[in-house]
Amino acid sequence: MSPTITAFAQSPDRGRGLARDMQVRWALEEVGQPYDVRLVSFSDMKETAHWALHPFGQIPTYQDGDLVLFESGAIVFHLAERHAGLLPDDANARARAIAWMFAALSSVEPPILELANARLLEGDKPWSKERLPLVVDRIRDRLKQLSNRLGDADWLDGEFSAGDLLMVGVLRRLSSSGLLDEYPNLAAYVARGEARPAFRRAFAAQLAVFTAASGG
Amino acid sequence: MSPTITAFAQSPDRGRGLARDMQVRWALEEVGQPYDVRLVSFSDMKETAHWALHPFGQIPTYQDGDLVLFESGAIVFHLAERHAGLLPDDANARARAIAWMFAALSSVEPPILELANARLLEGDKPWSKERLPLVVDRIRDRLKQLSNRLGDADWLDGEFSAGDLLMVGVLRRLSSSGLLDEYPNLAAYVARGEARPAFRRAFAAQLAVFTAASGG
Repeated sequence: MSPTITAFAQSPDRGRGLARDMQVRWALEEVGQPYDVRLVSFSDMKETAHWALHPFGQIPTYQDGDLVLFESGAIVFHLAERHAGLLPDDANARARAIAWMFAALSSVEPPILELANARLLEGDKPWSKERLPLVVDRIRDRLKQLSNRLGDADWLDGEFSAGDLLMVGVLRRLSSSGLLDEYPNLAAYVARGEARPAFRRAFAAQLAVFTAASGG
Repeated sequence: MSPTITAFAQSPDRGRGLARDMQVRWALEEVGQPYDVRLVSFSDMKETAHWALHPFGQIPTYQDGDLVLFESGAIVFHLAERHAGLLPDDANARARAIAWMFAALSSVEPPILELANARLLEGDKPWSKERLPLVVDRIRDRLKQLSNRLGDADWLDGEFSAGDLLMVGVLRRLSSSGLLDEYPNLAAYVARGEARPAFRRAFAAQLAVFTAASGG
């Protein structure tokens, strides 16, 4: 039996791979684990059955036999722990790769989520225009630090790891903002992630859901 | 040799245990691992030597022999993996506890950080008074979901785990806001965490730094 993940039946990002199933699909492709996808509609996501799987009513969930998981970071970690290819064998290098997983989701993503909230939830507010540059500057602070640490390396700490997978996934949320272009090594880092065959397979799979849903 | 963590020489929270060394101290106490603390001043934190340890120039860092780690979530996980007491033995229960670790830091904390930013960085802005209730309502959405999931259980999934440790740590940021009181089971959950002997030892240790620094 393959594990089953959930994804949006109708992707709100129009197939740009910004929904959180993308990182899980990518990790599954990196480790060569076949998987099934159960698409959920927004009305499915209001049902008790969905909330039993996910305490915040979101996607993705991950089911493998008796195991039910939520949180894309935790699902990626679960896969990385059970398969070769996403975490180094050396104990210290492994711990550092895990640190980058947490860094992506708890230090780099929060200011990026603030920008998304500022646009989606407060874009019509009278303060929006004046406030947005402050939010963007808080992202710049973090990107500059990340850019300095990455330097001219290909990946954050040695070989590609689950830390890079999550970090590239977080940074991709900025693709349409132009902010990454201010840090050429970060833009190249994201492009390097997106060029991986496993990324491309995962991206195509989530895009196919959107294309089918929109009748394209 | 005991591991060494870094903490603020002068705690900006006046010893309330909201700096991110608190969760690491708590985890160290839970597993019975003695540790050393190196206090860093705000000027130390501007030095290249500190940035070599922490890519975002923050605390805590964790050093144990050749291993240097950052990100409090990753440090707690590192301790939980190497010592008994913070992750269940059963593989599925362990994966779920790790999911709660990620949930604390990537689903529950971000809206709470938004509120902190709204107060600290935008408290003097003309939109502050009108905007704060929107930010608070986004926290309420998440707290309600978490409260529903916790129900009348003591901990999020069976025995106390590193997931609870991080979740209690995140929720404690709301202690002064009164928001937790709207969800009595969450307030009781936080109190249950704070009553653990390991929490109390960790809290006392970080408070002693503040008391000594302030000459009290």
